[in-house]
Amino acid sequence: MKAPSRFLHPQRTIDDLKELRELTGDDDGAQRVAFTPTWAKARKWLIEKTAELPVESHTDAAGNLWFTLPGASEKCLLIGGHIDSVPNGGWLDGCLNLMAGVEIMRRIHTEYEGKPPVTIRLVDWADEEGARFGKSLFGSSAFSGHLNLEEARLLKDRDGIPLPTALAEFGIDLETVKQAGNEAKNAAAYLELHIEQGPVLLDLGLPLGAVLGTCGVERHAIHFHGQAAHSGSTPMNRRRDAFLAAAKMATEIYHITERYGGVCTIGSCVTEPGIVTSVVEDCTISLDQRHLDASSLAAMLMKAKSASERFAQEGNVSVSWERIWEIEPVIFNRTLVEFCDAAILETCGVSHSLPSGPLHDAAEVSRAGIPTVMMFVQSLHGISHNKIEDTLEEHLGLCVEAFDRLAEKTMEWIVKRERGSAGC
Amino acid sequence: MKAPSRFLHPQRTIDDLKELRELTGDDDGAQRVAFTPTWAKARKWLIEKTAELPVESHTDAAGNLWFTLPGASEKCLLIGGHIDSVPNGGWLDGCLNLMAGVEIMRRIHTEYEGKPPVTIRLVDWADEEGARFGKSLFGSSAFSGHLNLEEARLLKDRDGIPLPTALAEFGIDLETVKQAGNEAKNAAAYLELHIEQGPVLLDLGLPLGAVLGTCGVERHAIHFHGQAAHSGSTPMNRRRDAFLAAAKMATEIYHITERYGGVCTIGSCVTEPGIVTSVVEDCTISLDQRHLDASSLAAMLMKAKSASERFAQEGNVSVSWERIWEIEPVIFNRTLVEFCDAAILETCGVSHSLPSGPLHDAAEVSRAGIPTVMMFVQSLHGISHNKIEDTLEEHLGLCVEAFDRLAEKTMEWIVKRERGSAGC
Repeated sequence: MKAPSRFLHPQRTIDDLKELRELTGDDDGAQRVAFTPTWAKARKWLIEKTAELPVESHTDAAGNLWFTLPGASEKCLLIGGHIDSVPNGGWLDGCLNLMAGVEIMRRIHTEYEGKPPVTIRLVDWADEEGARFGKSLFGSSAFSGHLNLEEARLLKDRDGIPLPTALAEFGIDLETVKQAGNEAKNAAAYLELHIEQGPVLLDLGLPLGAVLGTCGVERHAIHFHGQAAHSGSTPMNRRRDAFLAAAKMATEIYHITERYGGVCTIGSCVTEPGIVTSVVEDCTISLDQRHLDASSLAAMLMKAKSASERFAQEGNVSVSWERIWEIEPVIFNRTLVEFCDAAILETCGVSHSLPSGPLHDAAEVSRAGIPTVMMFVQSLHGISHNKIEDTLEEHLGLCVEAFDRLAEKTMEWIVKRERGSAGC
Repeated sequence: MKAPSRFLHPQRTIDDLKELRELTGDDDGAQRVAFTPTWAKARKWLIEKTAELPVESHTDAAGNLWFTLPGASEKCLLIGGHIDSVPNGGWLDGCLNLMAGVEIMRRIHTEYEGKPPVTIRLVDWADEEGARFGKSLFGSSAFSGHLNLEEARLLKDRDGIPLPTALAEFGIDLETVKQAGNEAKNAAAYLELHIEQGPVLLDLGLPLGAVLGTCGVERHAIHFHGQAAHSGSTPMNRRRDAFLAAAKMATEIYHITERYGGVCTIGSCVTEPGIVTSVVEDCTISLDQRHLDASSLAAMLMKAKSASERFAQEGNVSVSWERIWEIEPVIFNRTLVEFCDAAILETCGVSHSLPSGPLHDAAEVSRAGIPTVMMFVQSLHGISHNKIEDTLEEHLGLCVEAFDRLAEKTMEWIVKRERGSAGC
């Protein structure tokens, strides 16, 4: 394990995060929902925090907030995060990334005496959580060009306010948000640090992990249709019990993940008529399947479909599937994953590589063709999107150190590649 | 097979039923919900139908409507049914019983030239279905004394009208309904004909069956409590999935009935938070268990409880049970079941004995200590509480014949018993 740069002060990141928590949180947790006054307040604070650095800052067409520390090369190292939170959110989700990024800019500015080898850019993506309009990765998907404008035009919050109206209040025209893609110019790599939103590192007793990519998702509603019948007068062998068929899927999805890895979740079950005196006529369950490997994800879906058909046949009911949403897996850049792993090893002496089940802005940046990697830090309760979200202060320190090392390795790589291509 | 009495005209019963259907039904089925104007209209029609007979009629303290054809003995043969229906109900459920009873009174009056050996009483029980206030067997449970007044005082319909208010509109004081028990005086036997509300006779290809009794019922809400967790970031082996544990009960209840007989139904499943991106934290299912044998019913309940505890343990969730309702099995009078079986054999050449899963007024009469039996006629689609409820016209004719034979055998039995006790 190597000593960190003497110009890096992880405690400053921790202090910044605590300051932000005081400013924008309450007893129920973080309240920085995107496109709200508290979110705007947090961004103003972020700009003030970078005032000591010679950075240029502006918001792009999608409302993403960029800070640029110019370097010897125009080639850019991007570091990203999001200051927005879910309502009653955790104090680290999204802003740990940003404040670690600010500290790394400080370190680089000092260490290179104002002349970093490459340009460093920090980006605060707009509305990663999608908490208000139900559409996550807003800013980064505008940047990548994957944002579905037709869908976005129709989104409304709980009070019926349309997304375009809310955006206009922040000077954003929904119709032009994809111009944010211009910010990708000269981008050579993208790094994102994030608190793990699950218990993998916690279970392994490890502070940090290198993220291999974000899982692909297949999300469906599965509808079983049987026949309502009186609970007292209908013999068991005469029933067409939609709940029986649907319920068999619960065990099946665990068998599927035993075979293929990944995760499957039945999060909702609705029964009709849903009364104590009738066999269930209609039963609808939701199924969320995730895997880092596209072919494994496809196989998991196929297995679940054929199982549902088998259970339907056994119970003399019918089954139909409706796709709610899907996204392909995003595999992060292999070299950057190696750098991330090495940076963690140098910091903690032990590393681990893992996929991310939840999506992150990094997935959209990777889809935009920019070499990307993420680093995870352990979540103390294996939980996020909750006021009890937390990470040991010791681990916070380690993650800033390791993330800084990853930034340094990546800068060197960008320089080397530039020289390599210049030499061709 | 013997020829029926030449004074019996089953076609009159069928014609009466069709007339009632015209008068009180619409395109969606029967609409004779108790304590509504249509129900009152049906009762008025019923009184008119009996006008040709020298019967006395009155309603008792619970709103049950009694018709008395006096006989040589004060000992009474009771025949019962209910003219009330569920909304959009079938044309036979409840009123087939009554109109067969009217025809039997006509036959006895003619055949015995106005001097029946025993007194014959026909009763139209008030609110068998409980469609408006959610409490079935209102009139007959007031008669038996089993009505829970504390519960009944609190019942309201969908418009918030309390049961006591609705009763008052029909001249009934809830506080005095149990005085209906006075009608039990001199009651020697109770007979009830009913359309089967399931497919047992249909599957066996038989028109009629003798009913052994009504099943006991154990009705519970079973609540599994786990832990909400992100569908993407929570490894399968870390989940505390309340739906997984609850779903295992679906198959289990079929295993239980394979072993013990009876029926078990999970009619409702509710998941919380019930969203596609979270493992289910809370899952509540309803379980309705029925058996004619009390010890088998108790064993079924015990098996279900221990299975739920096993599934909870396997899934690291907790489970709790809440009893919604229970009633013990009611076994009908053995001699009357034999008479019923013999009457069916004489009518069709083939009979079958079966329990009733659904409850009927007969269960309450039996609980009041009056020797009781029911006869079932085949349901064409194995279905009731639905406008498609139907019975072959040929079977309707047979059931009136067989039920009349049962009445005759029972009258003879009452006379014989009276003589027997007089001779002591």
